[in-house]
Amino acid sequence: MMDEGRSFQDYLTAVTVQVERDLLQVFPEDWDMPSKLREAMQYSLMAGGKRMRPIMAIAAAEALGGCREATLPVACAVELVHTYSLIHDDLPAMDDDDLRRGKPTNHKVFGEAMAILAGDGLLTHAFSLVGRANRVHGVSAEQCLAIIEELSIYAGPKGMVGGQAADLLGEQGITSADELHYIHTHKTGDMIVCALKAGARTAGANQQHLNALDLYGYSIGLAFQIQDDILDLIGEEVKLGKPLKSDEKQHKVTYPFLIGLEASRQKVEDLTELGKQAVIQAGFPYPNRLLELADFLMKRDH
Amino acid sequence: MMDEGRSFQDYLTAVTVQVERDLLQVFPEDWDMPSKLREAMQYSLMAGGKRMRPIMAIAAAEALGGCREATLPVACAVELVHTYSLIHDDLPAMDDDDLRRGKPTNHKVFGEAMAILAGDGLLTHAFSLVGRANRVHGVSAEQCLAIIEELSIYAGPKGMVGGQAADLLGEQGITSADELHYIHTHKTGDMIVCALKAGARTAGANQQHLNALDLYGYSIGLAFQIQDDILDLIGEEVKLGKPLKSDEKQHKVTYPFLIGLEASRQKVEDLTELGKQAVIQAGFPYPNRLLELADFLMKRDH
Repeated sequence: MMDEGRSFQDYLTAVTVQVERDLLQVFPEDWDMPSKLREAMQYSLMAGGKRMRPIMAIAAAEALGGCREATLPVACAVELVHTYSLIHDDLPAMDDDDLRRGKPTNHKVFGEAMAILAGDGLLTHAFSLVGRANRVHGVSAEQCLAIIEELSIYAGPKGMVGGQAADLLGEQGITSADELHYIHTHKTGDMIVCALKAGARTAGANQQHLNALDLYGYSIGLAFQIQDDILDLIGEEVKLGKPLKSDEKQHKVTYPFLIGLEASRQKVEDLTELGKQAVIQAGFPYPNRLLELADFLMKRDH
Repeated sequence: MMDEGRSFQDYLTAVTVQVERDLLQVFPEDWDMPSKLREAMQYSLMAGGKRMRPIMAIAAAEALGGCREATLPVACAVELVHTYSLIHDDLPAMDDDDLRRGKPTNHKVFGEAMAILAGDGLLTHAFSLVGRANRVHGVSAEQCLAIIEELSIYAGPKGMVGGQAADLLGEQGITSADELHYIHTHKTGDMIVCALKAGARTAGANQQHLNALDLYGYSIGLAFQIQDDILDLIGEEVKLGKPLKSDEKQHKVTYPFLIGLEASRQKVEDLTELGKQAVIQAGFPYPNRLLELADFLMKRDH
């Protein structure tokens, strides 16, 4: 792989630049749509996310020797779905958040109705992007169809939407690590696994690779979430872009709350190692970026 | 076609029964998801819609001699997208409607947050249904991918979501038939055309067929919408399932308001004829149900 020699930080930067270049173009200039709607969708899409899911899709494809250009449409699709979920999560009827990544949330800027529509538009449009991988980059129609089906299932009522609903229904009523695990698996883990498998499919993954990415994805996804909880408790406000201890103030049940801070830290480490081992044992020809990514997520401070 | 001999009313009934049987099964029983979410999605999905879009998909497929079973997954997908759009349209931040087809709207029963999620879940899940046409019924992966891409574009920011946004932004500011035409084209027409083309694609439509369905769909779609406006003005409350003159009370700009009742009636007739001619000239082997459907929509009283 042409990037194998670079540091991981350089790799992240290079991939992020390419993803953001493509995200800027997901809605063709000449498409006739209300400009406020376009603005609202672009606002959240370009609000400076970490682009973790697109990076995962690309790292998984490249672990198999896949071509980055062929994976970008799918990587963008996953980011559109992620962005829609944040817009809807922030709505007054849901988490009622005013800030996201240090900026006013979508409904604060564009109003509630437009925020609902911006989310709907991003979610819907994501599915049309996958076809590009077939038309422009020669990924087989069968693989694209499998990617779409997985995107629909991991993001849908059995996946992310289900996790969100469980979170909503369980508010203030969650008492066990099991329940919390269910919510995290679906709210966060499903879309991470989806991104990894979608990327790998554009590079012709076999079932063994897909199974390994399942285990890797759920492990680092949960580690990521626990790390989030830890950072909410002890991180630096300015790096996080949101007030500290917001979970505590909202009486949210978190891992540090349930099992303590030290045990949470240990769990992040164990899960990261578990994920890395799954990738190592599945025999990816170029596993390094996936392994570095797992470590990077564990050590992040925002 | 086995149903060619039946009356159109019998045909409608038979197709509706099959569509509703399949809609009941779109979320497998053994899928692990919050039961409230499942309930909320099923509530709106089974709230007794006219199933016009699934019927259009099936009539278009059968006009080409296609098999109904192979079209049903796609017909259901379109109905899921339609249902999600109604749930979100009815939300307090949008049209703020309490009743839909004579029943309390989704957010009135399940709360606003769950209604948002039920809509998100239905929209997301729709895309996974299309793959069934390939896996179970042998529709080619290429056709399924084309159906998904069209579903995404007709339902997305350039299509239905765009029409909804334009409607929202234009409220009380619409003064011309052109603006109203734009909104109707995207809010209603796009998904009708989408249903017709998706159905026809499952039966191997060629470009001439697809073009004819474009013209047919936009014509009867607009006729349908104008007929809705007329019924809102002069229909029977009990048949409509909503209060009369709600458009007028909400100061909505409608065709009868812009061009008068008689001219509106004439426009419904002209558009219906235009649509029928498009189908007749495109040489469908079994065009009758499409022609009857156009007449049926024009003459409906609810």
